[in-house]
Amino acid sequence: MAQLLRVHNFNVSSDGIGAGEDQTLERPFGHVDHMRLFSWGFATAHWPGRTEGGTMGLDDYFTRDWARDIGAEIMGRNKFGPQRGPWEDHEWQGWWGDEPPFRTPVFVMTHHERPSFTLSDTTFHFVGGEPAEVLAQAREAAGGKDVRLGGGVSTVRAFLDADLVDTLHVAVSPVKVGHGLKLWESPDELLDRYHLDVVPSPSGVTHHLFWRK
Amino acid sequence: MAQLLRVHNFNVSSDGIGAGEDQTLERPFGHVDHMRLFSWGFATAHWPGRTEGGTMGLDDYFTRDWARDIGAEIMGRNKFGPQRGPWEDHEWQGWWGDEPPFRTPVFVMTHHERPSFTLSDTTFHFVGGEPAEVLAQAREAAGGKDVRLGGGVSTVRAFLDADLVDTLHVAVSPVKVGHGLKLWESPDELLDRYHLDVVPSPSGVTHHLFWRK
Repeated sequence: MAQLLRVHNFNVSSDGIGAGEDQTLERPFGHVDHMRLFSWGFATAHWPGRTEGGTMGLDDYFTRDWARDIGAEIMGRNKFGPQRGPWEDHEWQGWWGDEPPFRTPVFVMTHHERPSFTLSDTTFHFVGGEPAEVLAQAREAAGGKDVRLGGGVSTVRAFLDADLVDTLHVAVSPVKVGHGLKLWESPDELLDRYHLDVVPSPSGVTHHLFWRK
Repeated sequence: MAQLLRVHNFNVSSDGIGAGEDQTLERPFGHVDHMRLFSWGFATAHWPGRTEGGTMGLDDYFTRDWARDIGAEIMGRNKFGPQRGPWEDHEWQGWWGDEPPFRTPVFVMTHHERPSFTLSDTTFHFVGGEPAEVLAQAREAAGGKDVRLGGGVSTVRAFLDADLVDTLHVAVSPVKVGHGLKLWESPDELLDRYHLDVVPSPSGVTHHLFWRK
């Protein structure tokens, strides 16, 4: 099977918003209450970092698929941290503490150079260039496995615009946010290029599963 | 996380029947038309043995979870072959050809002795004893990973009766069979011991996801 680029457990509000525009160190998702978006995932047994308890129904199939056959992740700079401009604070090593959940090479997209570093099983690389160039590097590093596109909103949009995404799992929460960074006006925008299964979950979110036509 | 015993992609008709009573070499599921039960699975990209094409929506989440973190399988004798009584035909090595999809040790439950043998990455062992004893052997062989309970109907029933099953995925097809080997009169029979998510799929089957209370 081909080496896919996959989006997993990406959360948006019912009006398509994945994050606020006003990210800070204290509020990685800006004014958007990410607990309300992500609560379905936190409740599951296989949410990254959880070690006991949790549900094992439908929602858990999605959280446990996150790591399956993944050899690298690509993320936007804003997923890695709230800083903008040149990297002045090399002490900042992401939001995830000493044991980031990725356990693969991670490619952080940025216009500013910074040396790679390793935390536990995860190595972060800082790379510029177009989405296709970054994807080529991530595929090379993934050792034949798939590559996960980790977000945030602008990064997913850039890879969709470049037609590089093979599958997407987007959980739409029954919460309206009003303004912020939008993934879409409607999931129907992707139907010219993707099949779509729409799956309501007992937890209240609606899973949207896209795969290429 | 504990070492689980998991049932995956187990198919029954709308009246709870998983196989006919009249199994033969030509008809592994007896009079039951297994193509009608399994068609949702055959259509997916990750059905065992499929190498290209296939859907990647909801149904594929179930077929691709089949191998995740599994270190051994337990199956009943009737899943392995149509023979009854002592093993007279050692030429018979199961229904799956030279490359069985299991790729782990497989424990075939039988009252009759037979030497183990290996085909590609799969080794078949033939074991007697109670479900709990067979599960202990399979756990030992699984090297810390989970154990899959592969069926058929009588085997799943025996492990449910012994309260050894941790999670079950049962796909209920919109087909009535009338008579045969029954998994249940109704999925509600398991609700005293299990949580249940009921998930209708666009393909027409209804996935039933059970996990322990």
